[in-house]
Amino acid sequence: MNTNDPKIKMPHALITIGRQFGSGGRELGKKLADAFGYKYYDKELLSEAAKKAGMDPGFFEKNDERAPSFINGIFSFALGLTPNNIYTGSTSISDDSLYRAQSDFIQSLAEQGPCVIVGRSADYVLRDNPRTVNLFVHAPMDNCIDRIISREPNLSRDKAKARAEKVNRLRSNYYNFYTDKTWGAANSYHLSLDTSLLSMDDITEIVREYILRRFKD
Amino acid sequence: MNTNDPKIKMPHALITIGRQFGSGGRELGKKLADAFGYKYYDKELLSEAAKKAGMDPGFFEKNDERAPSFINGIFSFALGLTPNNIYTGSTSISDDSLYRAQSDFIQSLAEQGPCVIVGRSADYVLRDNPRTVNLFVHAPMDNCIDRIISREPNLSRDKAKARAEKVNRLRSNYYNFYTDKTWGAANSYHLSLDTSLLSMDDITEIVREYILRRFKD
Repeated sequence: MNTNDPKIKMPHALITIGRQFGSGGRELGKKLADAFGYKYYDKELLSEAAKKAGMDPGFFEKNDERAPSFINGIFSFALGLTPNNIYTGSTSISDDSLYRAQSDFIQSLAEQGPCVIVGRSADYVLRDNPRTVNLFVHAPMDNCIDRIISREPNLSRDKAKARAEKVNRLRSNYYNFYTDKTWGAANSYHLSLDTSLLSMDDITEIVREYILRRFKD
Repeated sequence: MNTNDPKIKMPHALITIGRQFGSGGRELGKKLADAFGYKYYDKELLSEAAKKAGMDPGFFEKNDERAPSFINGIFSFALGLTPNNIYTGSTSISDDSLYRAQSDFIQSLAEQGPCVIVGRSADYVLRDNPRTVNLFVHAPMDNCIDRIISREPNLSRDKAKARAEKVNRLRSNYYNFYTDKTWGAANSYHLSLDTSLLSMDDITEIVREYILRRFKD
């Protein structure tokens, strides 16, 4: 099987991407969607899609991959974070029902066709769907700092590192609270990759190979 | 690039495999070595190689991926394991110097050419070598139990599960004690895969794709 032939039609798959902050999850997600002809969703695009569907436009911003307030309160306290790190969204519905509404919306998007979804514990939301391909991407901290600074050149390396650590903690709290798995543990995902050793184009082709072999039928 | 052409010569790589018990790490390792023309080493073959080199034949059995006695003593006690689970090898050298000797031996094998090494925290031993490809393989517990029972048909599912959990704890203690990384965490490895969703032949081709793309020069 020559799986490298770009003319091969990609099978139906739902790619979810978990990622360490600064490891290039969104960049990879966009590339995969582009290369495979899948739809792409991250926080902004999920918000937009929710808006189009007539829902609250702040729908995905409000519950920004943070565990419910009391959990982050405990963690923030323990970690010595300042109070404005704590989720204080003024939504009128509870964190839990917001999470459920987001999950229902992700489910409805997945029913519309193949797509790439970055974050939102979409792997867990879509866990009963056999077409999911759950990716996790990571990179050594120095590489993550490089990528963060390339987006925000005025940031010092120390500040970029502190931000990466904080966002990773929030993502981990959110994921571990809402799922029965552990964020960043290899066995929570189908395929995990270090993004510092290959170009995003090469990683795209490795994921293509994975999908073509997994969904041969 | 048609990376699926089996006639393409595989570049020099040192594949290390970390694995959950029952997830097929050895089976995959043998397949990779076979398909790529690399040497293959697991515990038995490392012992044999050590013997050939004129070293103690029990060299690799004695320190069987267990952290030093006092560490396992603590864990065994906490887990209610029986005393014979605790490492009590009657070697005259300390666990630490045994680990160092094993590491030196793995280094010397790696210098002889491309190879696949299963276990022994070989990823950490060879961490300064840019040709390492550090894999971790895992599978849902039910699949691991299936594989364990296929090797030992008289084992009950409960006993197979208990063994998998115990061996995973020992591997984790060993790895976390001797390295600065976390066993089973995606970011401790370059590429992690769930072996329950693809055949070992397909996984072999995905790893081939990975290696050909990573070492293009």
